[in-house]
Amino acid sequence: ATTKETDCLINGDYSVKCKKEGKDVYMPFSFIQRYFEVYGSMETTSDGYERFGFHHSYSDVHPLPERYSPDGVFMMFDSYNVEERGRVKCISAIEGVPVSTQWTSGGHYYPIQIAQFGLSHYSKYLTEHKPRIIVLEDGEGNDLSEWLLPDRISQIRTKTDRINEENNIVEFNTPENIKNPGVTLSVDEAKLVTLTLDVKFINNGSVTVLLRTGDGNLFRIHYILSDSLIYLEGRDLFYGLGSEKKNKWIHLSRKVMVDFQKGLSLKMTKNKRAKFKSVARIAAVCFRGHGFFDNVSLSSAAHLDNFFDAANYLVRRQDHRGGWPIMVTRKLVPEMLELSPGWYSAMGQGQAISLLVRAFLKTKDQKYLDTASKALKIFEIDSAHGGVLAKFAGKFDWYEEYPTTPSSFVLNGFIYSLMGLYDLKQTASGETAEHANRLYNAGMDSLRHMLLMFDSGSGTFYDLKHITLGIAPNRARWDYHTVHINQLLILSLIDKDPLFANTAKRWMEYMKGKRSPHN
Amino acid sequence: ATTKETDCLINGDYSVKCKKEGKDVYMPFSFIQRYFEVYGSMETTSDGYERFGFHHSYSDVHPLPERYSPDGVFMMFDSYNVEERGRVKCISAIEGVPVSTQWTSGGHYYPIQIAQFGLSHYSKYLTEHKPRIIVLEDGEGNDLSEWLLPDRISQIRTKTDRINEENNIVEFNTPENIKNPGVTLSVDEAKLVTLTLDVKFINNGSVTVLLRTGDGNLFRIHYILSDSLIYLEGRDLFYGLGSEKKNKWIHLSRKVMVDFQKGLSLKMTKNKRAKFKSVARIAAVCFRGHGFFDNVSLSSAAHLDNFFDAANYLVRRQDHRGGWPIMVTRKLVPEMLELSPGWYSAMGQGQAISLLVRAFLKTKDQKYLDTASKALKIFEIDSAHGGVLAKFAGKFDWYEEYPTTPSSFVLNGFIYSLMGLYDLKQTASGETAEHANRLYNAGMDSLRHMLLMFDSGSGTFYDLKHITLGIAPNRARWDYHTVHINQLLILSLIDKDPLFANTAKRWMEYMKGKRSPHN
Ligand SMILES: [Ca+2]
Ligand SMILES: [Ca+2]
Repeated sequence: ATTKETDCLINGDYSVKCKKEGKDVYMPFSFIQRYFEVYGSMETTSDGYERFGFHHSYSDVHPLPERYSPDGVFMMFDSYNVEERGRVKCISAIEGVPVSTQWTSGGHYYPIQIAQFGLSHYSKYLTEHKPRIIVLEDGEGNDLSEWLLPDRISQIRTKTDRINEENNIVEFNTPENIKNPGVTLSVDEAKLVTLTLDVKFINNGSVTVLLRTGDGNLFRIHYILSDSLIYLEGRDLFYGLGSEKKNKWIHLSRKVMVDFQKGLSLKMTKNKRAKFKSVARIAAVCFRGHGFFDNVSLSSAAHLDNFFDAANYLVRRQDHRGGWPIMVTRKLVPEMLELSPGWYSAMGQGQAISLLVRAFLKTKDQKYLDTASKALKIFEIDSAHGGVLAKFAGKFDWYEEYPTTPSSFVLNGFIYSLMGLYDLKQTASGETAEHANRLYNAGMDSLRHMLLMFDSGSGTFYDLKHITLGIAPNRARWDYHTVHINQLLILSLIDKDPLFANTAKRWMEYMKGKRSPHN
Repeated sequence: ATTKETDCLINGDYSVKCKKEGKDVYMPFSFIQRYFEVYGSMETTSDGYERFGFHHSYSDVHPLPERYSPDGVFMMFDSYNVEERGRVKCISAIEGVPVSTQWTSGGHYYPIQIAQFGLSHYSKYLTEHKPRIIVLEDGEGNDLSEWLLPDRISQIRTKTDRINEENNIVEFNTPENIKNPGVTLSVDEAKLVTLTLDVKFINNGSVTVLLRTGDGNLFRIHYILSDSLIYLEGRDLFYGLGSEKKNKWIHLSRKVMVDFQKGLSLKMTKNKRAKFKSVARIAAVCFRGHGFFDNVSLSSAAHLDNFFDAANYLVRRQDHRGGWPIMVTRKLVPEMLELSPGWYSAMGQGQAISLLVRAFLKTKDQKYLDTASKALKIFEIDSAHGGVLAKFAGKFDWYEEYPTTPSSFVLNGFIYSLMGLYDLKQTASGETAEHANRLYNAGMDSLRHMLLMFDSGSGTFYDLKHITLGIAPNRARWDYHTVHINQLLILSLIDKDPLFANTAKRWMEYMKGKRSPHN
């Protein structure tokens, strides 16, 4: 059969060149992709066979664990790499948590991102193999001969730890000047690039990691006693540890290549950055000034460090209302739905609770549970009065990710808040458990009544602001649709209502192009 | 460039044969049509050019009048042909209104269908050209020589009308037996096939229309004094006029070819029927028994007759609660949402009101307005107590097309009920106007808050039972989507809230494949 060109008139509006062979008409994928919002490309199978892969969605639902528990993996967060996201400016060396550029390029501490950072590392801690680790120096061997001294006046020696006499630490003493190389241990490591160490500075010292980049030159990351978050000067990148850390033991845990990458982001395009990173190696670790260090290691990961950095941040930074206020303007719909700096997010509160509950269960340290308990208060304050509580149709309690007026009813944020309440009610006892339980039950009742409002028949809606504002619905893109599905799958593990499993099943089918029935 | 075959793997599940030319991949329309629920076929333009027409929807939005008024055209009902629909068993010759086979093959009087029948004829009356009419006999000429008598004892003569002495009527007297041809006027008419006449039987008489069908044979439609709705015996089709019509003037108005078609439907397939119909002609009109007739005409239409048949039916058949109960079981969701015979429909009540208001405005006969006013009561009775009132989230009044428990919130039926309330509040005065106004305002308030729940982002939902039952959404097929749009366009004419016009505009765009934005 011969193939001929034929015009195809689309809805009477414009033409597309198609092929015709006998009675069959073929339409170009370039049109199909744009018109129907689908995806496709030529793919080569493992046996070298070429074919075209058509994909309804760019996202996938990964299998979840078969049970959920408040000390377990948090949803599919073990697959998250929060710190590598473009909207993370860097990991603060002061707080040990990410700084977000979402909605403000200047950066801010965004409790949702911080909780997600902590929960992802906790989940990775549970699901990944034990990290590989090389101890570079623990002060126990007395042999410090591998450390290079920068000059004749600089010193390095082991010393008994005053806090734990069975432990040795290393004392160093060099000029403070950042131009001085400090006491230096050379390494050559491209794989185990998480640096962990304990350090205490007596004066204005610093820690430096030397990298050898692809061009054979050196690049330096300096961790300094400053309140500056991050700045780059040529091939010198600076992270502040906080000006008040002098004379205190600091436990530093850094994903060095992330620190490097975030530094490059300050001045370079994404493509140039990627090239730079792929060939960097850790060449040395240096200490300068006067102080002590111990437990200098390179490892494949230090998830619990990251987890506790986040948990401790939340304990430290909770405000008098029990919340973590968000200090940026959030414009959900410009000039219609805006939040002024200082708003709280039920999702932030909920994910913080999920993180704090895990920190409590891991340590049995009551401070984590107390912090989680105090975080409940904001769930009972109306959005209009600075809280996160909305009511749908004046009847159904809804904890708002973005507590706008009128309400926006973001689904994923609400369900995350319910997961936090679940974690706390299952873990706490007495008044706290009752309080969390009351909030959880009210929220679950709302969800049962309102869940299907988010079902578009071919996907899901991100929120309900089309209903409250009378505007076009905000369809959830496929990655948010996937989050919705994962959340329902988690709920189906903790609630016996078949609504959650049935709806998740249908929503998964939507990802393969199936639609709900029509009348 | 050469065109090659290539496999396309759909969502990793199954393969479809595609074409590849250079870097371009072409997918077969047979797949696209099924997968995306779109439409297409080869079309030839007026200048003979062949092309492929791709259509997102099979339905179109027709332009509506620029203003709406309670005595005007009802939406796009001037394009409806209610009586020709497959689910109309026939037009009852007893009541003059359609009998529905929806949900029961036995047939029932369905107020919605009856109101739509009346409203469509009223709208056609307003928009169509004046009908063409041939008066076959009005008794005014004294010359009855064209009438054939079946035998020597049969008689025909003109007579003065006792009610109106300026008018003559025709008296006929023949054997009653249906085998007797009666007094007969031969005609040969294929276009003006609406028969109207006035007749009064003294004994058990009948009217017969003789048709000549395509095979050259005769077919007889008998209108008899019986309570039987319709039955077919060979080539004799019987419609009952009602056993109690003896000694009363009957105004008969029949679309003869519809009567013929519905008779054939009793025994024939659709294809065979269509063939039969296309070649039938009216060959004669006959009266038998003893009685009087007048104003025997053939015309292109008798819309006002049909309209008043419907209006008078509604006046006659309104029950003590002010409603028109529907005597079939309606299973919206089998074993979950079922209505037992005797339910009322807010859509039925509303469309009946729209019809009755038009009958009142046409005639100034108060009985129509009184009937409309009495129809309001049911709007205030809960669905659970036999009325049509539902409340969404315990807050928003909704008048139910199908008053199920839990509620189903069918959109088009609700808006039709609001149109009825609007027509009445605009037309009535005093207590009735206030009552209708109160119901209308409450409903419009609900609609404003709930309208966007029906927006799927790429079409509309028929109802909200997915929300009340937690099941898959019921997407509106394109013809219902078109009804939704037409209804919003009407509302935009009577309510200044831009919500209606804006939403209608977006819903029209959905019909060309546009979607609401995603996040
Ligand atoms: Ca040690
Ligand atoms: Ca006359």
